[in-house]
Amino acid sequence: MQPVKVGLLGLGTVGGGTVNLLARNGDEITRRAGRPVEVVHAAARHPERPRTCSTEGIRLTSDPFEVVDDPETEIIVELIGGEGLAKELTLRAIDRGKHVVTANKALIALHGNEIFARARERGVTIGFEAAVAGGIPIIKAVREGLVGNRIEWLAGIINGTANFILTEMLYAGREFGEVLAEAQRLGYAEADPTFDVDGIDAAHKLTILASIAFGIPLQYDKVYCEGIGHVSREDVEYARELGFRIKHLGICRRDEDGIGLRVHPTLLPERQLLANVDGVMNAVMVKADPVGPTLYYGAGAGAEPTASAVVADLVDVVREFTLEPENRVPYLAFQSHSLSDDPVLPMEAVETAYYLRMLAKDQPGVLAEVTRILGDSGISIEAIIQKQPGPGAEDVPIIILTHRVRESQMNLACERIEALEAIQGQLTRMRVETLA
Amino acid sequence: MQPVKVGLLGLGTVGGGTVNLLARNGDEITRRAGRPVEVVHAAARHPERPRTCSTEGIRLTSDPFEVVDDPETEIIVELIGGEGLAKELTLRAIDRGKHVVTANKALIALHGNEIFARARERGVTIGFEAAVAGGIPIIKAVREGLVGNRIEWLAGIINGTANFILTEMLYAGREFGEVLAEAQRLGYAEADPTFDVDGIDAAHKLTILASIAFGIPLQYDKVYCEGIGHVSREDVEYARELGFRIKHLGICRRDEDGIGLRVHPTLLPERQLLANVDGVMNAVMVKADPVGPTLYYGAGAGAEPTASAVVADLVDVVREFTLEPENRVPYLAFQSHSLSDDPVLPMEAVETAYYLRMLAKDQPGVLAEVTRILGDSGISIEAIIQKQPGPGAEDVPIIILTHRVRESQMNLACERIEALEAIQGQLTRMRVETLA
Repeated sequence: MQPVKVGLLGLGTVGGGTVNLLARNGDEITRRAGRPVEVVHAAARHPERPRTCSTEGIRLTSDPFEVVDDPETEIIVELIGGEGLAKELTLRAIDRGKHVVTANKALIALHGNEIFARARERGVTIGFEAAVAGGIPIIKAVREGLVGNRIEWLAGIINGTANFILTEMLYAGREFGEVLAEAQRLGYAEADPTFDVDGIDAAHKLTILASIAFGIPLQYDKVYCEGIGHVSREDVEYARELGFRIKHLGICRRDEDGIGLRVHPTLLPERQLLANVDGVMNAVMVKADPVGPTLYYGAGAGAEPTASAVVADLVDVVREFTLEPENRVPYLAFQSHSLSDDPVLPMEAVETAYYLRMLAKDQPGVLAEVTRILGDSGISIEAIIQKQPGPGAEDVPIIILTHRVRESQMNLACERIEALEAIQGQLTRMRVETLA
Repeated sequence: MQPVKVGLLGLGTVGGGTVNLLARNGDEITRRAGRPVEVVHAAARHPERPRTCSTEGIRLTSDPFEVVDDPETEIIVELIGGEGLAKELTLRAIDRGKHVVTANKALIALHGNEIFARARERGVTIGFEAAVAGGIPIIKAVREGLVGNRIEWLAGIINGTANFILTEMLYAGREFGEVLAEAQRLGYAEADPTFDVDGIDAAHKLTILASIAFGIPLQYDKVYCEGIGHVSREDVEYARELGFRIKHLGICRRDEDGIGLRVHPTLLPERQLLANVDGVMNAVMVKADPVGPTLYYGAGAGAEPTASAVVADLVDVVREFTLEPENRVPYLAFQSHSLSDDPVLPMEAVETAYYLRMLAKDQPGVLAEVTRILGDSGISIEAIIQKQPGPGAEDVPIIILTHRVRESQMNLACERIEALEAIQGQLTRMRVETLA
């Protein structure tokens, strides 16, 4: 059979990994797909530079538009990242009637609605498995494997850098800044770690996961996003004493009133599988009716795992070439005319349990005041630990786990507790999920 | 759009669950699939009996051939189980040009080669996601999600009953027989538990997984199969002391010489995710190049999770209706003309690490003799524990963990150790996998 001819935009880490993979596993891929997949034309900013992959048989150019416009390329793989040029090239490829495969989570999270609308008009497929959780086939699992399910919630460790940092804080007992520096040395974290550490990258991925889970349009701007910069070694340690691990999760949940979309540090019971996903690994847990809980685990980043997802999308596109568009798997899992307008809830309307930590003067009655405020605010207490003052310190740490409560109620209660004369400075608060 | 019309063979637990699911989530399924999926004709042994599902709008019959022959049914869902009648009905449906979806692992493991050949001739699809690991979309993940990978090995907890029993033995410190009786009371184990406890059910599923992982024909008769009946509370406890958990695994691994296919109790390091999959839950870990390790977790049995997989297959079939057969996902992941003839290794040629337990007379020099035999057989020792004799006992338990060694070498060494005058009775041996 005729090989499928692919145009590649970007020959960096993932681009090189994809070319290598197609060469190394070319035989197995052809035996599965029924026809070979070949990169025939590729764009790199500096085509003359040495590469991590062989570029034999591939025309190289510094102009990505040349690859898109090349009549020979049937599928365009977009691996240059960013939103500006990547978007322009993607739309141009669509206009040329070409299918597009991308690993670009920002592109899909921010411009996916527009891109999918254009692709639908032109009857082409957009593959983005590589944009979420690297090599884990999570898009496929949710869109196709769980097609018969009503998804209730989904919670994922979807940023490897943040998970590496939290894992090191737990097992090596080190502080955030120290571990971040090491992650940068090891190449797990960028020189500017904002995207990973502040949760922006995770929020992009959650945006995509929520849309395919609930059939809602992509709404990145409605994701509540909190990073891990404020998680202290102390909190990691107290959480452990209480039988919990702190993980940076992206969570979407459908309630009666609407859908909560949030990225934040989260306490998880230590026996939960998700709490035991360590290092740079990713995992996504999905709770759905009728299948119940399922979990998908694997490497969330890196050239090789991402290339695995890119090639999976390429083969899917090859298989769907001859399929009428209405019989293809819809971009966001649901047919475009039947997307849902379920509202995304403001964070104040979301319910979770809480971990609270505060420093109190070592004097009688403080705990009574704090618990009274919680009680008055309708907040039930699950557990309390009051510690001895640290060496040389006079204030005592109080740690409280609450039952589920609306964020808005918790905000009010926290303000009132912070206003107490016996409470020092601000409360530390983190959300708790049992995933039960 | 026109609804897809399904004929259902079997209205028991899974059949009823499937009808219920199509009713309960019908709206979401239609919004995803693009057209409704309707059961129009169903066969049950006793159609007049009360059902767990509403049968409104479904023609009922006691003759399954009537459903297969009904010109209105486009897809046949086979849920009657067993091999005889199920095979006959499946082949007849294929001959009538109908696609078939089945949850029947024995049917596929034992007769899949013949069924797929016939289906290929007639250009129809056979869906069997529900046959392996219930609601976990593992067939889809391996066949499609990992399509770009060369799979190295796969290891799975693929029988919920056996996993429930081992979990209870670990956490409740109870003996096999006692827990089995409870599992039967709870409905997790059949009155005749042979299929689950002896590993036959797991061997069926492993047969299927190995074929889609490596592109080999289905070869159930070559699976080495050992049940959990001989796992004692003592072994569970010693394993725990050594930092391991005992799980009943199906494992297939591709080595230079061929492919190992085996089901047996296995010691896993306690920090491995797979070691923490408890109760009736299933999970499959896949190691592949380039994606690395990935893991898929969920409910492996039960009406609801199995129905989830049946419906996923139904929707896939609906989507592929209009696809040329050569563009469909191949039955065994690889195109039929390019299946591999890699040999399946006899168990004697398979390499694993071992856990050995023996009872020795409490006299000097025994340990030296045992370790000498192992050394002479080229078997390296990873750890040894020698225990005090139990209360009232005179013999001392010796527990040894070895490095990887060929089964044939271990057989010889065990014979020689058992022949020692100071060793009482037979050695207990179990395989150890680090999954690294």
